[in-house]
Amino acid sequence: MRIRVVALTLLACLSLAAAPTLNAQTPDATAIRAVLEKQVADWNRGDIDAFATGYKNSPDTLFIGQTVHRGYAQMLDTYKQHYPNRAAMGTLSFTHLEVQPLDARFATVTGNFHLERTVAGGDNADGYYLLVLEKTADGWKIVRDASATVPPKPH
Amino acid sequence: MRIRVVALTLLACLSLAAAPTLNAQTPDATAIRAVLEKQVADWNRGDIDAFATGYKNSPDTLFIGQTVHRGYAQMLDTYKQHYPNRAAMGTLSFTHLEVQPLDARFATVTGNFHLERTVAGGDNADGYYLLVLEKTADGWKIVRDASATVPPKPH
Repeated sequence: MRIRVVALTLLACLSLAAAPTLNAQTPDATAIRAVLEKQVADWNRGDIDAFATGYKNSPDTLFIGQTVHRGYAQMLDTYKQHYPNRAAMGTLSFTHLEVQPLDARFATVTGNFHLERTVAGGDNADGYYLLVLEKTADGWKIVRDASATVPPKPH
Repeated sequence: MRIRVVALTLLACLSLAAAPTLNAQTPDATAIRAVLEKQVADWNRGDIDAFATGYKNSPDTLFIGQTVHRGYAQMLDTYKQHYPNRAAMGTLSFTHLEVQPLDARFATVTGNFHLERTVAGGDNADGYYLLVLEKTADGWKIVRDASATVPPKPH
């Protein structure tokens, strides 16, 4: 039993040593990841209003796709138009999430998204994004979101 | 003649009043636009090395497409692989360019790109982007570039 504990401790130490610095657990990086994890949980509960609180409630917040949507209100409206029900929302997951600080107030995040959906719900979707987050009085909030979809993978 | 001067002055005042604030000619916005205009001129002269100087020469500079390219050197290498000759480079233009400051040190730019190319050169390409720029000792430099292509328009 003792050997097993030592082995597990060693394994844990090796895993930590091997962790890339990009995934460093600075307080800011941890807080930013928590914002995105909460967004995923809110989305997968079907709560777009809660999901949207990951963005800064400001007219300067930008959502960049093929067109640019300006401001929190327009962004939320667009989300609700594109994802009118649970089937259209599907199940969201983020991968390859990396936090890259700009300074103490701003950071960027790159990552990939996957939306698992039924054919009726709009089928699966995949893409990547660049987010700019700002450390506000209410915590880290997304102020720019450039998302792009990539061609669907064969089933 | 005097009436014409007055009329032109009035017209100029009206034009200034009608200019959207997004295109405000702040010194920073003007400097940022100049960086991008220089990039277009460098590209259309076939000089990728000069074009690349619009980016910050740092290992933290990120170019985000379907994969993330890290650092100035890798980004420049990727550009040279994808655009090996003048035909592949084509003629670049930027439209819908908008500068949105984050603070005194950082700003974002959104815009659309168009690459006019022969079929042999890879055909026309269109897309949009979100850039994050930093005010460095060498002037404003791109530190994040998320670019996405959109489906080609019919000829």
